[in-house]
Amino acid sequence: MSGQLTIIGLGPGPGGWVTPAASEAIANASIVLGYTQYVNRLTPRAGQVFEASDNREELARAERALALASEGQHVAVVSGGDPGVFAMAAAVFEAVEKKPASAEGIDIRVEPGITAMLAAAARIGAPLGHDFCAISLSDNLKPWATIEKRLRLAAEADFVIALYNPASKARPDQIGNAFEVLRTCRAPETVVVFARAIGRNDESVDVTTLADAASMVCDMRTLVLIGSQSTRKIEAADGRAWVYTPRSARGE
Amino acid sequence: MSGQLTIIGLGPGPGGWVTPAASEAIANASIVLGYTQYVNRLTPRAGQVFEASDNREELARAERALALASEGQHVAVVSGGDPGVFAMAAAVFEAVEKKPASAEGIDIRVEPGITAMLAAAARIGAPLGHDFCAISLSDNLKPWATIEKRLRLAAEADFVIALYNPASKARPDQIGNAFEVLRTCRAPETVVVFARAIGRNDESVDVTTLADAASMVCDMRTLVLIGSQSTRKIEAADGRAWVYTPRSARGE
Repeated sequence: MSGQLTIIGLGPGPGGWVTPAASEAIANASIVLGYTQYVNRLTPRAGQVFEASDNREELARAERALALASEGQHVAVVSGGDPGVFAMAAAVFEAVEKKPASAEGIDIRVEPGITAMLAAAARIGAPLGHDFCAISLSDNLKPWATIEKRLRLAAEADFVIALYNPASKARPDQIGNAFEVLRTCRAPETVVVFARAIGRNDESVDVTTLADAASMVCDMRTLVLIGSQSTRKIEAADGRAWVYTPRSARGE
Repeated sequence: MSGQLTIIGLGPGPGGWVTPAASEAIANASIVLGYTQYVNRLTPRAGQVFEASDNREELARAERALALASEGQHVAVVSGGDPGVFAMAAAVFEAVEKKPASAEGIDIRVEPGITAMLAAAARIGAPLGHDFCAISLSDNLKPWATIEKRLRLAAEADFVIALYNPASKARPDQIGNAFEVLRTCRAPETVVVFARAIGRNDESVDVTTLADAASMVCDMRTLVLIGSQSTRKIEAADGRAWVYTPRSARGE
């Protein structure tokens, strides 16, 4: 019997953003693995096993998923957002590379999902309407000097910048340091968006400027978007604020 | 009667990637506008009007959508992929900024979708597992010098690079020029992925290197992914090739 391993993105929160393909893959699984917060969003069907674990155990979870699939099980590994963006899919392929035999005979698939920056952008308008980049601020996995270099080059390239994992209890100052770097290479009036818990009951979106960004509350559930030079905030007739980046860029 | 305007992402192709929220928004619309290729993916329900137009008429379509919504209609504007990534959402907000009164009393919403790079990445593994950027190669809307500068800085930042709109009939050489720029700043063995028509019956994914990339066929339906220095191609025991970018980055 040949096993299956599907790495699935659940999107940022509500059921309306879980694709039918993802739902089908979850329904077909005999066992579902993932970070507790994501597994808890699902309801097991009869005979289905759910196995939740800590967020910092990604490689161990990937290895366990491969081991279960090699026994012939249909394994689903779930991530919030998209599984390929700072999430479980890379961990699974790291485990495959480390031990290729562990993946033998397993049908591995990845089911994409709505990643946080797309959901955040949709709520506030179209800030990702032109060239952009995504940077994880977590320095568990890379040195701060690399993050700082990328922020500077992204600012020089005039990308809109999406910051994932901007802060955590262990590193509350990271995002402040990032703003400090960006203030040396982007104008103080640059538009900054804080999108928190998008799609959940307690979601919030705040628009500010780079000059005032450091005073905003930011946690693990926040995605931060920093505008390019072209990104603008506009106000609709009803007073609602929108942020968008025009499709065209001026020459430099 | 107050009108609605929802800008909706259909994802890259198959129905399994259209989110339930997007399907619901389409079902609620009295009129659906969009580029012919995207509108043709849908089936109108009784009493629903479909209005397809050319891909180059984005601003005119946005203005028409606002005009219809201001008459009290429930208007859906559909894009392939995500509507906020090089697509219709920015065009709508450009139209709103140009003429704020045209949006008065209209409930505007954006429904996110699976953008092409997420679907392409899912098919080949996890190439977007670490910091990345998305650049549109279309120079209709920006000078080539800007594109070239961004490619150089993205390479220097060691981002994985997703190239949208890599080629068209009007500009078949663009992607070749991009590879030429990248060959001056990235190693010849850099992994390059050509993902074509992902999610459609004729989909294909090819993995090559920067040295050989120029010889690959590339058209409007292709998304090109250029690896970072860490991105690697691995081979599973069954000979299947996967491409992924490890979650951790070495210092530089």
